[in-house]
Amino acid sequence: MQLGFAMLCAGSVRAKNTMNIMLTNVLDAAAGAISYYLFGFAFAFGTPSNGFIGRHHSFFALSSYPERPGADFSFFLYQWAFAIAAAGITSGSIAERTQFVAYLIYSSFLTGFVYPTVSHWFWSTDGWASASRSDNNLLFGSGAIDFAGSGVVHMVGGIAGLWGALIEGPRIGRFDRLGRSVALRGHSASLVVLGTFLLWFGWYGFNPGSFLTILKGYEKSRPYYGQWSAVGRTAVTTTLAGCTSALTTLFSKRLLAGHWNVIDVCNGLLGGFAAITSGCAVVEPWAAIVCGFVASWVLIGFNLLAKKLKYDDPLEAAQLHGGCGAWGLIFTGLFATKRYVNEVYSGDSRPYGLLMGGGGKLLAAQFVQIVVIVGWVSVTMGPLFYGLHKMNLLRISAEDEMAGMDMTRHGGFAYAYNDEDEVSVKPWGKVGHTSQSSTPTPPLTA
Amino acid sequence: MQLGFAMLCAGSVRAKNTMNIMLTNVLDAAAGAISYYLFGFAFAFGTPSNGFIGRHHSFFALSSYPERPGADFSFFLYQWAFAIAAAGITSGSIAERTQFVAYLIYSSFLTGFVYPTVSHWFWSTDGWASASRSDNNLLFGSGAIDFAGSGVVHMVGGIAGLWGALIEGPRIGRFDRLGRSVALRGHSASLVVLGTFLLWFGWYGFNPGSFLTILKGYEKSRPYYGQWSAVGRTAVTTTLAGCTSALTTLFSKRLLAGHWNVIDVCNGLLGGFAAITSGCAVVEPWAAIVCGFVASWVLIGFNLLAKKLKYDDPLEAAQLHGGCGAWGLIFTGLFATKRYVNEVYSGDSRPYGLLMGGGGKLLAAQFVQIVVIVGWVSVTMGPLFYGLHKMNLLRISAEDEMAGMDMTRHGGFAYAYNDEDEVSVKPWGKVGHTSQSSTPTPPLTA
Amino acid sequence: MQLGFAMLCAGSVRAKNTMNIMLTNVLDAAAGAISYYLFGFAFAFGTPSNGFIGRHHSFFALSSYPERPGADFSFFLYQWAFAIAAAGITSGSIAERTQFVAYLIYSSFLTGFVYPTVSHWFWSTDGWASASRSDNNLLFGSGAIDFAGSGVVHMVGGIAGLWGALIEGPRIGRFDRLGRSVALRGHSASLVVLGTFLLWFGWYGFNPGSFLTILKGYEKSRPYYGQWSAVGRTAVTTTLAGCTSALTTLFSKRLLAGHWNVIDVCNGLLGGFAAITSGCAVVEPWAAIVCGFVASWVLIGFNLLAKKLKYDDPLEAAQLHGGCGAWGLIFTGLFATKRYVNEVYSGDSRPYGLLMGGGGKLLAAQFVQIVVIVGWVSVTMGPLFYGLHKMNLLRISAEDEMAGMDMTRHGGFAYAYNDEDEVSVKPWGKVGHTSQSSTPTPPLTA
Repeated sequence: MQLGFAMLCAGSVRAKNTMNIMLTNVLDAAAGAISYYLFGFAFAFGTPSNGFIGRHHSFFALSSYPERPGADFSFFLYQWAFAIAAAGITSGSIAERTQFVAYLIYSSFLTGFVYPTVSHWFWSTDGWASASRSDNNLLFGSGAIDFAGSGVVHMVGGIAGLWGALIEGPRIGRFDRLGRSVALRGHSASLVVLGTFLLWFGWYGFNPGSFLTILKGYEKSRPYYGQWSAVGRTAVTTTLAGCTSALTTLFSKRLLAGHWNVIDVCNGLLGGFAAITSGCAVVEPWAAIVCGFVASWVLIGFNLLAKKLKYDDPLEAAQLHGGCGAWGLIFTGLFATKRYVNEVYSGDSRPYGLLMGGGGKLLAAQFVQIVVIVGWVSVTMGPLFYGLHKMNLLRISAEDEMAGMDMTRHGGFAYAYNDEDEVSVKPWGKVGHTSQSSTPTPPLTA
Repeated sequence: MQLGFAMLCAGSVRAKNTMNIMLTNVLDAAAGAISYYLFGFAFAFGTPSNGFIGRHHSFFALSSYPERPGADFSFFLYQWAFAIAAAGITSGSIAERTQFVAYLIYSSFLTGFVYPTVSHWFWSTDGWASASRSDNNLLFGSGAIDFAGSGVVHMVGGIAGLWGALIEGPRIGRFDRLGRSVALRGHSASLVVLGTFLLWFGWYGFNPGSFLTILKGYEKSRPYYGQWSAVGRTAVTTTLAGCTSALTTLFSKRLLAGHWNVIDVCNGLLGGFAAITSGCAVVEPWAAIVCGFVASWVLIGFNLLAKKLKYDDPLEAAQLHGGCGAWGLIFTGLFATKRYVNEVYSGDSRPYGLLMGGGGKLLAAQFVQIVVIVGWVSVTMGPLFYGLHKMNLLRISAEDEMAGMDMTRHGGFAYAYNDEDEVSVKPWGKVGHTSQSSTPTPPLTA
Repeated sequence: MQLGFAMLCAGSVRAKNTMNIMLTNVLDAAAGAISYYLFGFAFAFGTPSNGFIGRHHSFFALSSYPERPGADFSFFLYQWAFAIAAAGITSGSIAERTQFVAYLIYSSFLTGFVYPTVSHWFWSTDGWASASRSDNNLLFGSGAIDFAGSGVVHMVGGIAGLWGALIEGPRIGRFDRLGRSVALRGHSASLVVLGTFLLWFGWYGFNPGSFLTILKGYEKSRPYYGQWSAVGRTAVTTTLAGCTSALTTLFSKRLLAGHWNVIDVCNGLLGGFAAITSGCAVVEPWAAIVCGFVASWVLIGFNLLAKKLKYDDPLEAAQLHGGCGAWGLIFTGLFATKRYVNEVYSGDSRPYGLLMGGGGKLLAAQFVQIVVIVGWVSVTMGPLFYGLHKMNLLRISAEDEMAGMDMTRHGGFAYAYNDEDEVSVKPWGKVGHTSQSSTPTPPLTA
């Protein structure tokens, strides 16, 4: 999954920042892993909790982690992957113009505190809005259904990215003097497609996989077969939503922009996935097609809005994960079926989707989740990014940005296709010199 | 698996068509998924069938799909992956010169109708030539053994590609004025190797994986352990056939062409895999080595034939999947062992391989399968491609082909390694301008 | 896993040798697979053995391989993957300057004889130093604990590479006339990161996966649940060691070299993985952090030493797999906990880590393992490489090396981004001509 993000990001940025973006992806994973190990997991799943966050001391750094069935190390690993995914989403929004140290700080803070808190509220057995509270004292008698994290993972990552990108402002050259949008094309469509397919593959781990591990966390016994069938259903809804969204995006953009664009299709696919992630276990396959169709338009709409507001997000992460994630939560509130909700969350008279005749309680809980996530991430990550900005730790200098960070910060360009490159590139070498050997003429934009 | 195809195709075409080929791969997957969901699965496995195709209405769009053990959503997903693989094979044959709309049409038709019919005949429990008919009224008392699809998947995709490539004719410049072959080299060997390894990995999902899902479709109870051992055997035969074929191809091409070529090795590997796919579960490991050795020569032979006939297939898909797939079916008819056939298809006196002393009945059934698949795919896909050709929906204009489709259809080149590319490339921009910017002045270092 | 190696190697060498290195990786896998199938597996696990190597005739070419639970084909496949990994490590050390035929020879010898012998000693149920001997006649009453191969796989591959690289000498231009080190940068950081993440992913197959298959080989019955919990623990320790090592390397190199380097981080990550591989099942998570921290410094230290000694290893394979692998064995002797050692190797009073109060017996066994592996690989692979060298089968000519092997041996360059490349590149074409065609001249076809 993280690999998919790394390739997607690398392909989407300009060649001069390839090293930088890949480094941040490797480090998101590494720093996030350490931070989640030390603090995050205990905040998220340490029982008993104080209602706000988990706090059982024995969970910090897994110091005396209880090894009972259903709450073992593999559950920890799974949660870890989710935490890292959230941080990876954010890194896309702030790509190509952010200082290295800012990545380490926000990534540790996000995986160590902000994300775990949200996952405690919505996924833990004593989270106040969880659909699987063990004491059945559910929010609106329902709890918010966010099966594999449209809200908990995607919206958290997307909203965090939104604040980061807003505070940093657009990349140099992203909007011209008259304010018109100028596309800064990524340097390798192959890498984008590679990343997308890897994420597609990874999603089968996240969505259907949630049955095997998240449900174990609930410590409920249930017949094995029903679960297996639900795993298959989850994979089918996930695929259908993504494919529908990809095709819708393709034809829509063809009408709007006049050409077939593979990058748009990839983003459409991912938008469909982000949206279905919430309800994948509790909706019918046909509903997944509706979900994907709308997700595609949500993405297009938010992208147009971003253009109008001069918001620059190199990976469209806020629009895609934030926007489609929020739509996914609403979608679940509209289309969740009676039978599947009761099967997955083991009840017999739980509220279900409004359009399926299940009343508005579930939908209300979903709206509460959206508002709470937007609010919580904004009041935590917003000030963090603003503080970094004030301390001049957030954005790189305009000079470095023009030259590309690989040369100035990472000791060299990511690619060296010709022989002369190899010998002329030196760590901290003059930028002019190197940009000469890799591209002979002086930049026309200078 | 689809990712492997995407990378393999992308690396094998020229850089100017990278975007195009990757887009078609993403869309093969997406459009194929929708089409198979709506129609294909019902045609293939809807019971009861009318002998020709399945037709149980409840299977269309999974509208009331019965969730009994062994025929659940995961079975659907697995079949889905096979359907998409067949469409992916075909896309390789017609790469670099086909209109976008043609992909959407053939891909939906293939996954929605042509492929499902074949898989019904040979894999469904009431297919007329299936080795696992539930009523034991088997073709020649045997049925055709095509365990994981040498015929059903690879030959279908390869023959469809053959007709597409034949009707389109070779790419411009593929054969010079005197009719000599000119190699149009792919733009990235790294991507080809990446794709090959991913397919290798994916094959372990298809071949050994078939035990867990296809067999479930037969709804037979069988002891679990025997199956597990067979899964391991299947993985071993698959690996040995591929590796033998790769090494044979390497040395043969070294003798024939005078240099060691990694692309040939990759194709040899895949040819060996395509061949063993039919018999992987019912042959001894040593026979797999024979299978791979011959597969390599089948591939080389068909490639020489293609050159002679001026048939241009950018990915060698017809030769590789069609040719080696057919050899695989024959191979199974020759080398299937008594013990394994009876174990896998649960009988006690089934016909087995001719060379193993099992008589010619199985081999006859295998020949019938080859003839039927070639015939059926030819009478369906042939007219389809011809119709598209007549309606001018098949081939792009010569002008577009020379310029590369990325520029003319997809709004830009897939790669942008230099700074000036980013600003000068515009959707629908002049081709001359862009090819200029990608390599403008002589290197100053020279 | 092999894919990860291929991408890592390809990205780390210069563009002119991309085809060559990828070919050797495909062939390592293919030739290694055949060789291990024919001889290696029988040497490693054929019972009864003669104390030195296994020799049960029925295991050669799996001719009459017994299919009892716990010793089936899947066990064979798993061992196969390990054998190929060892050969892959070695190929990195000798990259960019080795003749093709030398790869085929060393790779067959390593996977067919050298590696199997070592794995017999330390992993088979009648290996003299195995921690899981079935007769409990253990070395120092303990046996060496090398759970997933820090020594058996990584050190074997690394030491073999060390001899190869030493005998070949450094690449041309790696050290200048005054003996100063000149970095020969790889051509694609994207591929390096891709490879690293794939290896990361693969490591979860090797380390936690070892429970399901290696332990089956021991034919011991044990409660299933304990094992499952240990699988999770293994994955956690693996991740923590790798991430710690990556972060430590990042900051250390920042201090030493003055820039943030993604390649260093990748190597640090892999070094941490190589080190934890030995003890991953028997240490606490916090100890894994210690392991990764030290591994990073071991790698940095060996790299400085290599520079001083003018030892050139394009992939740092000897330093990384040899050095960190040896540290991993020592680490296990220091930090293995009482509870886990007894759980995993099913005893109740086994010696455990020195620092955990378990006495020095385990540590002594670990030291014996290091010495034995260094010695055995040196006396087998050293003379092999030396023999190849004397027969002029090892190193390519200086001319070929300067031109790059892709052009001279593999019939073309791996990449062709511009149109003119396609037509002008001919097998065995003049080098000057081709390097010309890669940027400046107008297309001949125009």
